[in-house]
Amino acid sequence: MLGEFDIIARYFATPDNTSSMAGITLGPGDDCALLSPAAGTELAMSVDTSVVDVHFPGDAPPEAIGHRALAVALSDLAAMGARPRGCLMALTLSHAEPVWLERFAHGFRDLAWRTSTPLVGGDVTRGTLSIAVTVIGDVPVGQALRRSGAAPGERLAVTGALGGGHGGLRMWQAGGHDLEDPLLAAYLMPVPQLEAGQALRGLASAALDVSDGLLADLGHLCHASGVGASLDPACIPLAPTLEMTLGSEGALHAALNGGDDYQLLVSVPDVAWEEARRRCAECDVTLTEIGHVVAEPGILGVPETLSGVGWQHFTGDGP
Amino acid sequence: MLGEFDIIARYFATPDNTSSMAGITLGPGDDCALLSPAAGTELAMSVDTSVVDVHFPGDAPPEAIGHRALAVALSDLAAMGARPRGCLMALTLSHAEPVWLERFAHGFRDLAWRTSTPLVGGDVTRGTLSIAVTVIGDVPVGQALRRSGAAPGERLAVTGALGGGHGGLRMWQAGGHDLEDPLLAAYLMPVPQLEAGQALRGLASAALDVSDGLLADLGHLCHASGVGASLDPACIPLAPTLEMTLGSEGALHAALNGGDDYQLLVSVPDVAWEEARRRCAECDVTLTEIGHVVAEPGILGVPETLSGVGWQHFTGDGP
Repeated sequence: MLGEFDIIARYFATPDNTSSMAGITLGPGDDCALLSPAAGTELAMSVDTSVVDVHFPGDAPPEAIGHRALAVALSDLAAMGARPRGCLMALTLSHAEPVWLERFAHGFRDLAWRTSTPLVGGDVTRGTLSIAVTVIGDVPVGQALRRSGAAPGERLAVTGALGGGHGGLRMWQAGGHDLEDPLLAAYLMPVPQLEAGQALRGLASAALDVSDGLLADLGHLCHASGVGASLDPACIPLAPTLEMTLGSEGALHAALNGGDDYQLLVSVPDVAWEEARRRCAECDVTLTEIGHVVAEPGILGVPETLSGVGWQHFTGDGP
Repeated sequence: MLGEFDIIARYFATPDNTSSMAGITLGPGDDCALLSPAAGTELAMSVDTSVVDVHFPGDAPPEAIGHRALAVALSDLAAMGARPRGCLMALTLSHAEPVWLERFAHGFRDLAWRTSTPLVGGDVTRGTLSIAVTVIGDVPVGQALRRSGAAPGERLAVTGALGGGHGGLRMWQAGGHDLEDPLLAAYLMPVPQLEAGQALRGLASAALDVSDGLLADLGHLCHASGVGASLDPACIPLAPTLEMTLGSEGALHAALNGGDDYQLLVSVPDVAWEEARRRCAECDVTLTEIGHVVAEPGILGVPETLSGVGWQHFTGDGP
């Protein structure tokens, strides 16, 4: 695609964003960007691809598509307790439609600005719409939150509320298009829990973000930690209006099995629990206990009727 | 796509590659990978997307597709004089065919191993085949080779030989499939000039890699440096067998305008020239003077019949 440089320069450069360029020695435009690592930190890196009609509906507002592509990548930094330093975007477009691109870029840039995640590199190619975002963050040496540190007896907790991603997907599929609706907002404009992730460093023993569905992701955490879990489904915080929309059982099913929530699931030792809640509250984030870690592999406490297949995204069959 | 974790784990994990995992505190499998920056370095980052039938032919050997996707991304690190530290791959596949994937992964892993570029993260999605590779490297603070440092009077030089990318593309389109052929190898199995790039730190005043075609990329270098160039086309090193294949004029046209060569184009002050040649020779890389930098914008010395549109890749019209 000729004009890739122009497209990137025009829509994704962030010259108005110098305050968040701290540590970026060289931004987009050369063969590579250059970033100065902060003393005493490690770099955290992840890539997430969002494909049209797989991870998001093609007719979603372009601002939401741009926002969401960056948000889901940033959520991985949040889950490590890392602070964003920059991002790179591999954008594949079927055609370059200026109004769509401007709105897409606005959504991306707005979240980039608010999270101090300057876009330092990009590549634009022609094809089916997809957005692969690589995020780079940093974290004090040895303090990253991994999946593997959970120990029996610890409390399992989630930030915010669950099920909104799946509820919003259902609502979109039913024709709802009001981004002010809390479920649609949860699905299309998820907020990566960056502050909470950083606040939980030194307190949580393990963490990940709930992208595939609580049960699936809890399974990942348990597997990595070599433990099991006992869940109390009645304690799971449900997204606002979710029960009204899907009914009690449907709401709980969505919270357990629906994906795309991008909240953090953490394991916290008793001794750190009050401090963890306090620090999250300082970030305006609730931290809710939903069960505890047990020694034996497997997940207890979930009735068979409520467990299903996680990671459904846009194509998925749901409750 | 269910099974993305399995695919990544099975085909792209590099457990046999621990010697190149230096500084990787945490590899694939968690929300992020963790990398310890080396003292006194900056991080260099770039992303390159390779799309089937745009950047490479879909019927190319899978090993070559895997190799090439990483090689073109590494070439950007080479152009900055950076040392690879790791990479992340966003892989989009139309279907998961085990034999194809195994061969693709072999090509990717082999180059990753030889260049000490461990794959630290990945994402697999379903769609038209494309591979977006983000590379992370490091370079001593302040020593990165940028595009912007060229000054009038300096020598312009390229590593290796040019035109092979375009010549190989033409040969592939004509039905040639022998990867031992130097042109096909240049096109499908390009070698990123990592050692030469690092060797030229402190000597070259500006550098980039020749991916869009010599004239186009020289234009980028001149634009970034605020200078012009005088080329001596007769001095341009042509890829072996290129003249035999395309004729004298066609070969020169390919060297000037064809893309996909992934050699380095550098500007070198007189005083550093002999040392630059010597260091490249130590890397078994020739460094050939092809002109010099002038103050006035524009590129002199190229007959109009020999200048064309750069960046043609797989779809391009050529000489």
